[in-house]
Amino acid sequence: MYPITFQFEQGDAVLIDATKGDSLLEVARNANVAIDAPCSGNAACGKCKVKLVAGNLDSQKTSHISDEEYAAGWRLACASKVMGAAVIMVPDIASAYKSRMKVADLSSPEEIKIFEDAKADLAAVGLTIKNSLQVVEVTMNPPSLDDTLPDNERFSRALKQTINRKLVKLPYTVIRELPDVLRKSSFQVKCLVRMTNNDCFVYDVWPATQNVRIGGLVIDIGTTTVSAMIIHMLTGEILAKASAGNGQIRYGADVINRIIETTRPGGEKRLQDAVIEETINPMIEQMCKTAGLHQNHIYRMCVAGNTTMNHLFMGINADPIRMEPYIPAFFKTNSLYASDIHININPDAHIILAPNIGSYVGGDITAGTLVSMIWNKPEFSLFIDLGTNGELVFGNADFLMSCACSAGPAFEGGDISCGMRATDGAIEACTIDKETMEPTFEVVGDEGIKPIGLCGSGIIDVIAELYRCGIISPKGKFVRDGERVRRDQYGVGRYVLAFAKEAGSIKDVEINETDIDNFIRAKGAIFSAIRTMLSSLDFDISMIEDVYVAGGIGSGINMENAVAIGMFPDIPLERFHYIGNSSLSGAYAMLISTEAERKTYEIARNMTYMELSAVPSYMDEFVACCFLPHTDATLFPSVQQK
Amino acid sequence: MYPITFQFEQGDAVLIDATKGDSLLEVARNANVAIDAPCSGNAACGKCKVKLVAGNLDSQKTSHISDEEYAAGWRLACASKVMGAAVIMVPDIASAYKSRMKVADLSSPEEIKIFEDAKADLAAVGLTIKNSLQVVEVTMNPPSLDDTLPDNERFSRALKQTINRKLVKLPYTVIRELPDVLRKSSFQVKCLVRMTNNDCFVYDVWPATQNVRIGGLVIDIGTTTVSAMIIHMLTGEILAKASAGNGQIRYGADVINRIIETTRPGGEKRLQDAVIEETINPMIEQMCKTAGLHQNHIYRMCVAGNTTMNHLFMGINADPIRMEPYIPAFFKTNSLYASDIHININPDAHIILAPNIGSYVGGDITAGTLVSMIWNKPEFSLFIDLGTNGELVFGNADFLMSCACSAGPAFEGGDISCGMRATDGAIEACTIDKETMEPTFEVVGDEGIKPIGLCGSGIIDVIAELYRCGIISPKGKFVRDGERVRRDQYGVGRYVLAFAKEAGSIKDVEINETDIDNFIRAKGAIFSAIRTMLSSLDFDISMIEDVYVAGGIGSGINMENAVAIGMFPDIPLERFHYIGNSSLSGAYAMLISTEAERKTYEIARNMTYMELSAVPSYMDEFVACCFLPHTDATLFPSVQQK
Repeated sequence: MYPITFQFEQGDAVLIDATKGDSLLEVARNANVAIDAPCSGNAACGKCKVKLVAGNLDSQKTSHISDEEYAAGWRLACASKVMGAAVIMVPDIASAYKSRMKVADLSSPEEIKIFEDAKADLAAVGLTIKNSLQVVEVTMNPPSLDDTLPDNERFSRALKQTINRKLVKLPYTVIRELPDVLRKSSFQVKCLVRMTNNDCFVYDVWPATQNVRIGGLVIDIGTTTVSAMIIHMLTGEILAKASAGNGQIRYGADVINRIIETTRPGGEKRLQDAVIEETINPMIEQMCKTAGLHQNHIYRMCVAGNTTMNHLFMGINADPIRMEPYIPAFFKTNSLYASDIHININPDAHIILAPNIGSYVGGDITAGTLVSMIWNKPEFSLFIDLGTNGELVFGNADFLMSCACSAGPAFEGGDISCGMRATDGAIEACTIDKETMEPTFEVVGDEGIKPIGLCGSGIIDVIAELYRCGIISPKGKFVRDGERVRRDQYGVGRYVLAFAKEAGSIKDVEINETDIDNFIRAKGAIFSAIRTMLSSLDFDISMIEDVYVAGGIGSGINMENAVAIGMFPDIPLERFHYIGNSSLSGAYAMLISTEAERKTYEIARNMTYMELSAVPSYMDEFVACCFLPHTDATLFPSVQQK
Repeated sequence: MYPITFQFEQGDAVLIDATKGDSLLEVARNANVAIDAPCSGNAACGKCKVKLVAGNLDSQKTSHISDEEYAAGWRLACASKVMGAAVIMVPDIASAYKSRMKVADLSSPEEIKIFEDAKADLAAVGLTIKNSLQVVEVTMNPPSLDDTLPDNERFSRALKQTINRKLVKLPYTVIRELPDVLRKSSFQVKCLVRMTNNDCFVYDVWPATQNVRIGGLVIDIGTTTVSAMIIHMLTGEILAKASAGNGQIRYGADVINRIIETTRPGGEKRLQDAVIEETINPMIEQMCKTAGLHQNHIYRMCVAGNTTMNHLFMGINADPIRMEPYIPAFFKTNSLYASDIHININPDAHIILAPNIGSYVGGDITAGTLVSMIWNKPEFSLFIDLGTNGELVFGNADFLMSCACSAGPAFEGGDISCGMRATDGAIEACTIDKETMEPTFEVVGDEGIKPIGLCGSGIIDVIAELYRCGIISPKGKFVRDGERVRRDQYGVGRYVLAFAKEAGSIKDVEINETDIDNFIRAKGAIFSAIRTMLSSLDFDISMIEDVYVAGGIGSGINMENAVAIGMFPDIPLERFHYIGNSSLSGAYAMLISTEAERKTYEIARNMTYMELSAVPSYMDEFVACCFLPHTDATLFPSVQQK
């Protein structure tokens, strides 16, 4: 056994014993050291780059490590085997997906504006903040020798009178509390009820004088990122907001690899635990601390996620999704409760799922479509959700058509060597000086924060700028040289945005030709999907009135740049609207508004799904799109003009 | 620390370290050695008698130990303190309540006759074996690219067609199973549903070819004894039967002491665990093994118990029950599920409670009244349940009146030095030769089994016979002497039924004046209650057409003897009917028959409760009854005649 030390940039370290021949990535996992490996450790993505500081490793040489880097000690953890004692430095970027749960600062108005906007848009069409939860005050006569009704009947009788209902349901948990609460409060209580057409379910009962806030929980389960908010159910106020990497990422960057993992022994449980126990429950705990709310006082939860995420979240076999005829276990269900899957909120809390409509268009899209409002307009609009993969919805008040394209995780920083989520240290916007090739960028986080990687919006900007400055060719190859453009021994170029000394990391923040190639294929998948879907309807790009772009890829997208690289259609810029994480805001609307919930089900019922792979021209279209901006430059007249 | 060894009659032993001054009863509890102490260790009941085999104890001398016994090493565990190393022999009788879970032999026809009778009686008045559980076969078309309905909708659609219902509820647990079961079975399944007027809830789904038995569980939670059965829900067949001591007994023999224990920190949980984790769940496990049934395949449960037992079972504060105005948390509830209180059966199984009607007349009595059938007759009948305490119901098809009397646990062997439950080794019937004073008795268990104690029916016989033979006076004092009648240094007599050498124990099986006194007070409580209740209605004993006696006090009661000691009214013997454990058979009826369940609720609604302590004459009546058979001998003409 040899001692292996993992050091972090923040200065702390972890020590573990390993055996000769052990994979360094596995050793790190055993030591609970988070190192991203979206390719599942196949030396394919190059994200698990760590630095050998002392000792030796038996490391396979890969194209992800240049000679220069190799000499400096850089190795891929997945391609390295233990040979003896070693000290390994783990740069922040190597664990950027996993380690950072971020609880948002709600004093920042931009953080909540997007939700206020969504709420206002929905309210404008009559979908008001009104849900089935209500706090009701109930006053009873105390019992006496002449009035010996037991506690549950006494309370039910008074509640029925108060709310004028015939049927009241008290679960075991409430009956258990009644003797104490009634006597402590001298029979003056308040209770939280869920009122439906048929009955009234009582969640909890407290002395009338007790101050209680009724919480709700919204979760957007992305393949890469999980975002969440705690909501005041009676006012709609956002009490806390957080995001974190989806803990499942170590089992694969995409849904297919994760489904395959579930088919291994204990796999379903492993994937469910990764998202619930490792990701969601800690977020709930943190947010409740921030909001000063008891976790048990969260009584309703809404989840939006893609179809596979929904299955894995519920611990349900998702394997049939990936095999013909691609049948999920469910599109929707109204019989899921927090206790069923051990979400640490009130055990009786109802979990609402934004409905899936197919194996590859899930609740994140139906929830997003709700807040895009495209279902409410006579004009034709396009809704684009850039998550891990991309999904499109096109239509208007009369019809909605959706499709999914295999864009991969590049928009969220996956498949990109210095890619990361839009969290502290991520470059989210960038310009490059054409002359000097020097970059200027904005970094997510407090003022003065140093960059450690690039999030989706930053990558779009960098590629657009590199192209505009003539640093890369339309095929994404480096064609200029300079201090910031470097090449490895094979001549493969890369552009350094921040040298280690300027960066908040021991590692240069850079983008290389492989990254650019990955990103071009991702944006090509989006644009070819738009073209294919419109063609199938005999529509033309010019008929798109508005484009709503969603996704947690940064605080916004520079739409001009997105058009410049051929990702979005070349229509007037004012028609593009960035609507943030619409999956989260859609779930938020469903949580607080019963009418919004119904509307989402209606949208799901009316949305048709188009399988792109069944369209013969799609592949040709895709290949034509893998170019900056496109092989057919006439499709991008404004770019051509510049 | 000194080593204390507890030896058992079966030869095994337990060793534990104890500190000087520790109570031996506490040391035994810490070592998980079951020693009965129904008086909670106050040296009051004398049941925790153990034998010091080696070493020393600092033992308080009590009236429960004669000089002779003391010399032989007998000590009360509760009145003994550790002084040094010691070896303690624990006789079987000292742990008779706790240690013996008995799983019944269903090949014995008497074991099931009583339930067959109850079923037949109920069927005769139209309460048939028909409950809401049904097994339904469902056949679906497998999905294809043209028919991509998700699994849950496909299954629901087919089920709705099969059962002709509009609403079908699939819980999470079923959705989770669907993908595997549908594909394993080629979409030919069967499922267990609960059909109500409004909807259809699906519990489970299996391949159509799989053999599944649908189980139900019946539990009678007595203060002293817990009895249970597993039932085939579709046929009513009894698959297994068991009984065990209620694990709560170490916290007090009666409900009041147990309620007091719940008010101590962690008390509610402790009492609930004692009955569920220590008593009921092990019984379920054993019975399921016997029946060859999966615990998860028990889908419905019915519980009958007194009001306090129901509260402690549910972990609900019972303290208001014992204090004016004596208000329980509930009489009935239909919202209790197995998972709420961790009963190890199907977590979605509905738990039905036989309804309580007051703080001291509970579900055991309403369930018992159901099977007594007194509610169906024009004649007036009396139903007597002899459990820990006694409860009476008097009435006919037009009215029902009930009362409870503080008879204590003597009928179940509590408060009697050699008392035990009616399980292996219990003397359940006895005659005594008037000349020789030699006893002849029947012992529960296999042929040749030796006695270790006396159960309720045995005690009745022994006292009746001692009185008939002139061995004891009408006041219960020993007035003859002989080999079997012994007296301690204070002159207090006892009758030895079996000397240790004849007995299955190291301890004589005997009955002493304290026991007889306790029992006379118990039987006096019953008879005075009968008299008081009838008087309040201006009824006379002669107007009782039939008496139905219930209680697990033995395989039967010698009614002639029960009348002879003045426990039951002196009416023709053919009017007495022993109906066994009617709480259990009532719960059985409620479990398998929805109509019987409804009828029990109706009985509970119509039953009035009479508080004996509020009747001024009751106390005088009771004192007059504490005599063999009664101070007013004219009330027992047949006894007088003999």
